[in-house]
Amino acid sequence: MTSVFSKMRLTYGITPPKLATPEPRRREIAAVQAARIASLPIDALIVYDLQDESSRTGAERPFPFLQAIDPLDYAYDYLDRVARPKVVYRSVASLQAPQLVDWLRRLHGLGGATVLVGAPSKTQSVSLQLADAYRVRKAELPEVPLGGVVIAERHDARGGEDERVLSKLEHGCSFFVSQAVYSVTASKNLLSDLYYRCHDSGREPPPLLVTLSPCGSKKTLEFMAWLGVSVPRWLQNELLRAHDILAKSVELSAQSFAELYDFASERGIPLGCNVESVSLQKAEIDASVELVRRIAAITGR
Amino acid sequence: MTSVFSKMRLTYGITPPKLATPEPRRREIAAVQAARIASLPIDALIVYDLQDESSRTGAERPFPFLQAIDPLDYAYDYLDRVARPKVVYRSVASLQAPQLVDWLRRLHGLGGATVLVGAPSKTQSVSLQLADAYRVRKAELPEVPLGGVVIAERHDARGGEDERVLSKLEHGCSFFVSQAVYSVTASKNLLSDLYYRCHDSGREPPPLLVTLSPCGSKKTLEFMAWLGVSVPRWLQNELLRAHDILAKSVELSAQSFAELYDFASERGIPLGCNVESVSLQKAEIDASVELVRRIAAITGR
Repeated sequence: MTSVFSKMRLTYGITPPKLATPEPRRREIAAVQAARIASLPIDALIVYDLQDESSRTGAERPFPFLQAIDPLDYAYDYLDRVARPKVVYRSVASLQAPQLVDWLRRLHGLGGATVLVGAPSKTQSVSLQLADAYRVRKAELPEVPLGGVVIAERHDARGGEDERVLSKLEHGCSFFVSQAVYSVTASKNLLSDLYYRCHDSGREPPPLLVTLSPCGSKKTLEFMAWLGVSVPRWLQNELLRAHDILAKSVELSAQSFAELYDFASERGIPLGCNVESVSLQKAEIDASVELVRRIAAITGR
Repeated sequence: MTSVFSKMRLTYGITPPKLATPEPRRREIAAVQAARIASLPIDALIVYDLQDESSRTGAERPFPFLQAIDPLDYAYDYLDRVARPKVVYRSVASLQAPQLVDWLRRLHGLGGATVLVGAPSKTQSVSLQLADAYRVRKAELPEVPLGGVVIAERHDARGGEDERVLSKLEHGCSFFVSQAVYSVTASKNLLSDLYYRCHDSGREPPPLLVTLSPCGSKKTLEFMAWLGVSVPRWLQNELLRAHDILAKSVELSAQSFAELYDFASERGIPLGCNVESVSLQKAEIDASVELVRRIAAITGR
């Protein structure tokens, strides 16, 4: 099944406002965001389902975790004026199967796609495993387009992410979205192994969106490290020494993507880009918009 | 002291023939090599002093270690027709200080420079430590130009290689030569830290030659890994899957150098290149010559 979602090559990824945000303010934020998104040369909007992830590491979270508005509500109610295909992330660990079915049904009625996400660590108590969530979708609502998360750092550390991608394809995923990418080499390593694994089994490499996340401060960089994002030493130096860290981050992110895009194009891998905008600060939002424009230029739109 | 050796930007690195090679054959090899070197657009010739290095790892050495002709003899006797500045490597671990002084005196009489090399591991018994060898040279023959070895992999694994370079500068090194480079990121990480460390202490970054070593077979690639050279997974795939591994290796090595050269040029680091030719096979020698020509083109000679 080829849907609009497996043809996405440029997306914009956002997080909903926090639950603590008063309703009128939420509507204001959504209205401004909707107007901004309308001007972007993107194929789809991605709305994240933020998790705490504190179970993943003993280190202190650089930013506190605050519960956000339900991403499906935010995508289709608050942002109802955004007339773009929407991908809604859904963390499944705390769900029961019937809840997931209801949720998928609702999403299907709205025409959306989803990326189902498992628990961030094995220590977290889980009522629904990701593999079971995949089975539920396949049995009950296979018509909802499904994406999978892909993490190059996991491949560098212990391998097997290429096999995981193929297994997710068999479980129904038709596109992939990476974690934030700062290490071109880690991503090349994964793309290369994935390419040859597909090649050897006579299949086409699946569409994959490389996530870029502009970094506006030392603290954001520390948060990336906390999340498990690998940032090469030289790039860290460049950002921390930059006169304007945000502008430098946009420049280096665009360079990284250009390098990966060339690498993927030479191999016929349908590589796209997901630009994250997860901050409420104007400078950081502007940087994400600028990055979307640069990526659009690189991919020749 | 600025010598011709601290202005080197392109060198050719060779190993002498094995001791087991009969004298007439040695002379033949040297004659062919001398003619080849005469045609290369290089600033200097580097002659290695190969060590066993088996003490460095428990893994089996993919190629047996065979004692070679003394590198100084080879550089100035066998290759006396090569009218280029010469850098002769010298492993100091098994020497006594007076032997090193005699050797440096001989080298000085011939107008050469040296790279003194310490023991490959801490388990090897050592009669002369590298730091002591540096002191001996500084006290007795400071006029012999001295280079230092630099290893980006060491920096990635435990840091501090940038400090080691500055310390070697203080011990009298006026240029640096890397171990074989296959990981652009590891080299960028080191160059970046070194650049900022020099910048912060108000000094110029020292001249540094990036060593490239064409790889003609799976076994050579395994040997690189055995030597501690980090080869990114994607590059390993490209080499092992290539129709012509040697041609692919030349292409990728030139690409890697071009990337590092741009990176260094933007920061005012005097980066050069040392192309290794450590094989006796014609195809591998031709590849090294081709690589020298490509590097010459990249650096605009």
